[in-house]
Amino acid sequence: MALIVQKFGGTSVGTVERIQQVAEKVKKFRENGDDIVVVVSAMSGETNRLIDLARQVSDDQPVPRELDVMVSTGEQVTIALLAMALIKRGVPAVSYTGNQVRILTDSAHNKARILQIDDQKLRNDLKAGRVVVVAGFQGVDEHGNITTLGRGGSDTTGVALAAALKAAECQIYTDVDGVYTTDPRVVPQAQRLEKITFEEMLEMASLGSKVLQIRSVEFAGKYNVPLRVLHSFQEGPGTLITLDEEETMEQPIISGIAFNRDEAKLTIRGVPDIPGVAFKILGPISAANIEVDMIVQNVSHDNTTDFTFTVHRNDYQSAQQVLENTSRELGAREVVGDIKIAKVSIVGVGMRSHAGVASRMFEALAKENINIQMISTSEIKVSVVIEEKYLELAVRALHTAFELDAPARQGD
Amino acid sequence: MALIVQKFGGTSVGTVERIQQVAEKVKKFRENGDDIVVVVSAMSGETNRLIDLARQVSDDQPVPRELDVMVSTGEQVTIALLAMALIKRGVPAVSYTGNQVRILTDSAHNKARILQIDDQKLRNDLKAGRVVVVAGFQGVDEHGNITTLGRGGSDTTGVALAAALKAAECQIYTDVDGVYTTDPRVVPQAQRLEKITFEEMLEMASLGSKVLQIRSVEFAGKYNVPLRVLHSFQEGPGTLITLDEEETMEQPIISGIAFNRDEAKLTIRGVPDIPGVAFKILGPISAANIEVDMIVQNVSHDNTTDFTFTVHRNDYQSAQQVLENTSRELGAREVVGDIKIAKVSIVGVGMRSHAGVASRMFEALAKENINIQMISTSEIKVSVVIEEKYLELAVRALHTAFELDAPARQGD
Repeated sequence: MALIVQKFGGTSVGTVERIQQVAEKVKKFRENGDDIVVVVSAMSGETNRLIDLARQVSDDQPVPRELDVMVSTGEQVTIALLAMALIKRGVPAVSYTGNQVRILTDSAHNKARILQIDDQKLRNDLKAGRVVVVAGFQGVDEHGNITTLGRGGSDTTGVALAAALKAAECQIYTDVDGVYTTDPRVVPQAQRLEKITFEEMLEMASLGSKVLQIRSVEFAGKYNVPLRVLHSFQEGPGTLITLDEEETMEQPIISGIAFNRDEAKLTIRGVPDIPGVAFKILGPISAANIEVDMIVQNVSHDNTTDFTFTVHRNDYQSAQQVLENTSRELGAREVVGDIKIAKVSIVGVGMRSHAGVASRMFEALAKENINIQMISTSEIKVSVVIEEKYLELAVRALHTAFELDAPARQGD
Repeated sequence: MALIVQKFGGTSVGTVERIQQVAEKVKKFRENGDDIVVVVSAMSGETNRLIDLARQVSDDQPVPRELDVMVSTGEQVTIALLAMALIKRGVPAVSYTGNQVRILTDSAHNKARILQIDDQKLRNDLKAGRVVVVAGFQGVDEHGNITTLGRGGSDTTGVALAAALKAAECQIYTDVDGVYTTDPRVVPQAQRLEKITFEEMLEMASLGSKVLQIRSVEFAGKYNVPLRVLHSFQEGPGTLITLDEEETMEQPIISGIAFNRDEAKLTIRGVPDIPGVAFKILGPISAANIEVDMIVQNVSHDNTTDFTFTVHRNDYQSAQQVLENTSRELGAREVVGDIKIAKVSIVGVGMRSHAGVASRMFEALAKENINIQMISTSEIKVSVVIEEKYLELAVRALHTAFELDAPARQGD
């Protein structure tokens, strides 16, 4: 008998039929003797419908406090429906809004952070044999105002409840059956990972973000809540995301290949190489609310240096304008850019203890004649920027080079 | 500067456009210096949509507690939209659910009764110059469970808030511009009443129920909250419903003519006239959950009596069956019934101090050769049952006889 928190997203509860399927699934776990807390999102489409209504009365700028009052109704409908569906199946159940639980957050409407969870009510219900159905994505501030955690925040609610209740596992049900070594649409031999560490999952963000909210992974890592990604309507063990590195020591050095074609590259050339120049370049970019991903500064020659960074493609034009101004102010030579780039990363905690991982990566790319434009490394990740058209080729080459390909099945 | 509670029903807030119109109206009152608390219902159709969803997962028998969690989201959406629309117009506003206010109710889910309202938060907001927008129809019980007051309960919320805040007036905005002397579709000369007493309003139920929830009128009477019925989107003073009889002394003796064609009549003839016989007849009817309206027992002759009562037409057949059994048990002569009847009532506090009101009514009907089948009187109402086909003729004759007709306009 374990205490399990299960989170079902908008698609998993998108229709009455699906809510009934979720109820059947929860019932099975309950019959196995587990104590279950279920966290649900709004039925898919509902949050957008509510936001659209809010925009109509607000000239597209809804008051954040009132927007939270509105959109929090989305999950409130789902918790009631799921509780009803469970009770109809003979499973005692009770629903709670974020306010009723009480999930205390700060007052940052539309993007609140959880401060504290009162677990007493939930523990009493579990002790009485009830399944507890909690609205994800929402809470209440100290003044009693309804808050929301921002879109996708239901994952965070699940993890926070699992942490507060010291649950054995937080299961995140999605439309995929786990985390893969890379995108199976690009590499058909991609394999589902049995286990992955929180750090790896974070570094796999460009793949993983389709599966899990990054913030919830950070949260799970911080409180050491074992996370499991599973398919809502298929059987299978999914992928377990845990803190424990040792358990994954027998895993391959590299856990997966992440990639991203949403970025663009900007270079300011011939910048005087003086202290503070990096800040002078990135300060105005940051002030313009543009997020920067990779940053590379080459060693200087002739007392000038080249400074390159990547931004989201949507921000490319405004970043270029900002950079042109900076270039004039600093007396730099020129600003050049490229949007036809892609970023490919190898990720794995195993590389910490294995030398030569980066060179093996570069070798695999060289074999395919793929030129590397930028390199950036962290303890458990090596990322390169390449020409966009080579993306799929590069991912497949790396997937094979690091022995991630699934064994060929008969007939393959 | 007065404190006014304004209640807008589902049709008045049925679309984004209408919510914007309501915001404009509230803004005008605010600009006149009044303190405003607005109570709103769910957008029309929303409550039914939610109930339908609940039925789908519950084999048509939703768990009452969870149904309240669901349907309460209807008003929660409206309060946020109206608050947004007000703020967009430069009117400081804040929305509260029943739980946030806190409107404390008993735990009778789906038909809860208000026990207490915490007015402190509202008073602070009003003092700070904010319009307070409150969700009608909902509250919270002592355990923090969401409750609803039953359909149409938003009127009651308005009256209860007005009572708690000692508001100058509770304005109920509807799709009619006031309470009329009778249904204008039957009598084109029907006039809007400037004022009417709570008692009269209750007795006018068959007309008034289309305008106001009867329970809210009782509530308003009990706490002496002046109620005003107004049209949501037309200008005009509406009809004021108050306790004070003296103010209406100058009014006509009769305030209005109510009528009802939803009833059917049942008579048990030749019942032994012994003590307890009325209970023996009506007990089984009540036990079958059939509501009885008029009851008339004639004086006995030959130690037997005739006992007649009216029920809703939908209950006619089941009432007849129950009565046949009773008839056999009591050894009565026969059971006869008629569904082609109508009830017509004259209502007015003025009749208390004026003799001859009933005879004037009977005279007017006699002049039109309308036979009276049953008569029932209260302090401020005389009701008669007549053949259904004479209904309109009777209402018009009485409207004229009691001088309620509007002065003929030129061209009429």
